[in-house]
Amino acid sequence: MLKNDLILRAARGEQTERTPVWLMRQAGRILPEYRAVRNSLSGFKELVETPELAAEVTIQPVDILGVDAAIIFSDILVIPEAMGLTYEMVEKKGPHFPKTIEKASDLDKLRVADSNDLSYVYEALKITKKELAGKVPLIGFAGAPWTIFSYMIEGGGSKTFSKARRLLYSDPAMAERLLDMITQSTIGYLKKQVEAGADMLQIFDSWAGVLPPEHYSRFSLKYISRICDSIDEVPITVFAKGAWWALPEMANMNCRTVGLDWNMNAADARKILTTKTLQGNLDPCALYGSEEAIRKATQNMLDDFGDHPHIANLGHGVYPDTDPGKVKYFIDCVKELSAH
Amino acid sequence: MLKNDLILRAARGEQTERTPVWLMRQAGRILPEYRAVRNSLSGFKELVETPELAAEVTIQPVDILGVDAAIIFSDILVIPEAMGLTYEMVEKKGPHFPKTIEKASDLDKLRVADSNDLSYVYEALKITKKELAGKVPLIGFAGAPWTIFSYMIEGGGSKTFSKARRLLYSDPAMAERLLDMITQSTIGYLKKQVEAGADMLQIFDSWAGVLPPEHYSRFSLKYISRICDSIDEVPITVFAKGAWWALPEMANMNCRTVGLDWNMNAADARKILTTKTLQGNLDPCALYGSEEAIRKATQNMLDDFGDHPHIANLGHGVYPDTDPGKVKYFIDCVKELSAH
Repeated sequence: MLKNDLILRAARGEQTERTPVWLMRQAGRILPEYRAVRNSLSGFKELVETPELAAEVTIQPVDILGVDAAIIFSDILVIPEAMGLTYEMVEKKGPHFPKTIEKASDLDKLRVADSNDLSYVYEALKITKKELAGKVPLIGFAGAPWTIFSYMIEGGGSKTFSKARRLLYSDPAMAERLLDMITQSTIGYLKKQVEAGADMLQIFDSWAGVLPPEHYSRFSLKYISRICDSIDEVPITVFAKGAWWALPEMANMNCRTVGLDWNMNAADARKILTTKTLQGNLDPCALYGSEEAIRKATQNMLDDFGDHPHIANLGHGVYPDTDPGKVKYFIDCVKELSAH
Repeated sequence: MLKNDLILRAARGEQTERTPVWLMRQAGRILPEYRAVRNSLSGFKELVETPELAAEVTIQPVDILGVDAAIIFSDILVIPEAMGLTYEMVEKKGPHFPKTIEKASDLDKLRVADSNDLSYVYEALKITKKELAGKVPLIGFAGAPWTIFSYMIEGGGSKTFSKARRLLYSDPAMAERLLDMITQSTIGYLKKQVEAGADMLQIFDSWAGVLPPEHYSRFSLKYISRICDSIDEVPITVFAKGAWWALPEMANMNCRTVGLDWNMNAADARKILTTKTLQGNLDPCALYGSEEAIRKATQNMLDDFGDHPHIANLGHGVYPDTDPGKVKYFIDCVKELSAH
């Protein structure tokens, strides 16, 4: 039994005694306690692949910051790895794939991830669930197929993602074949996360914003929808960064919550997504301001969402150089200012 | 006298016998003729600073591709350099500032650029104007103050621009002081470009999309508006990439044309910007497709803009690895399909 189920009730669209709050990337570099664990290891991937330690850093922000949910410490790129494309995490630079997908025949070397893959993630979820002992819900997650696809084609981050986007024009059938494999892998992966203890799921479409609207509908939302249609065990949140134009289409999707980035306007989103819970959307840079400024920005954010079902969060992952004291102050402000 | 003034008439909102077309970054790496000039020199900056050669590469796409305007070959970062902050162009990586602005006292080392600065740009415009001999209009340009500011704080490109955005929260007065200096420098610079022969001006706000809407209004649009209010000699185009939310505010700005990126919907923009000419907005990746696909995408774009005053372009600069034959095909399609 959960002692604090605020976020699940908000996700179901219920009125809650206050607004629940958590932060994307709350388990990570902002906390000295995280860096101590991380620095004792050879690299980021060792932390992701060691269930006891992944569980430890997952729980840290619950205890230290007082967030209303834990999100499992992992990486969206475990899926391409399970499909046969290994990634490296380069310090201060980000992810890098030594081999990328270039031609249709490269797809023959990939496979759909199955239930034998990624057991370290499921193990980390089980340990976390046990150690949380019902304190707060546990969120599982995956990347959206389009975002995973982009990494597999580009081999890392990119300013324009022109290689990945090029394929949508030059060989859409190949693109759809790869997106389908990623989608199948992701559905199995998320279902196993629920079995292992995830109370909620979030799909991160980090590179949503680079696509023209028609392509976004065809090459991204279609696959996210398939995932949402395949999982009805727990509520799902979809966060499509930069895809402001897609909110009307999301209104008809089988997810419970839609995440907003800090460019999006909560007042507009409320009118479009009348039946969805909304999540977000403070500018992560607002946490660089004074406590007074953070308090005011938090109040403004809460006012923007009004009485619409709302899960407070930033509009993007918290930036690594943010003062954890300011993060805690933001969380405390949400709790205090939203209480009624 | 101009032999082809289609783009100026379209910018004034007049109906034209066909839609004029040019491409952002048309003078550049897509053309082998450009690369031949560039490779004969020590670096990118030598080309920017050598008026005869800058004029030569400015004219190349007019002759080779058949565009309806030339845009002077230069870089938006000549403004911070004229203010006292030197930039380097690192091959395949982009711009880099060895010194950046970190604290308020750093502003004391900067100055407002004056009419003695950047004479190589004015000289390049004069030569180009003469060599074009009225063939097509010549476009001058500058970066928007917010985008220039971002480079001066970050020292180069960035995924999140969190240093530049941080300053808007931590020291807005310092941010406004720097934005004001950049704006003053830019107004003088653009006026001199007009004196040297520019028939039109474009303001590029490349990093518009990273700001929350209130910040965009306060720290970017306000300064772009000041520039537009200060120059009435020639029509101005404002291209704020990613700032879809700002279109209603742009309706009241003293610019003639608003550029749309490929995420923006022309049908929506037409309703908001009833008195403005619209520019754009084919996805640059569409030029990786087959000729058949390019033709169809061009027809779709023209249909979206309908009978609204329109200057055809991509929704972003043309990507360097685009086949110039495909670029020419796109230009020919616009000319053919829009003729009436």
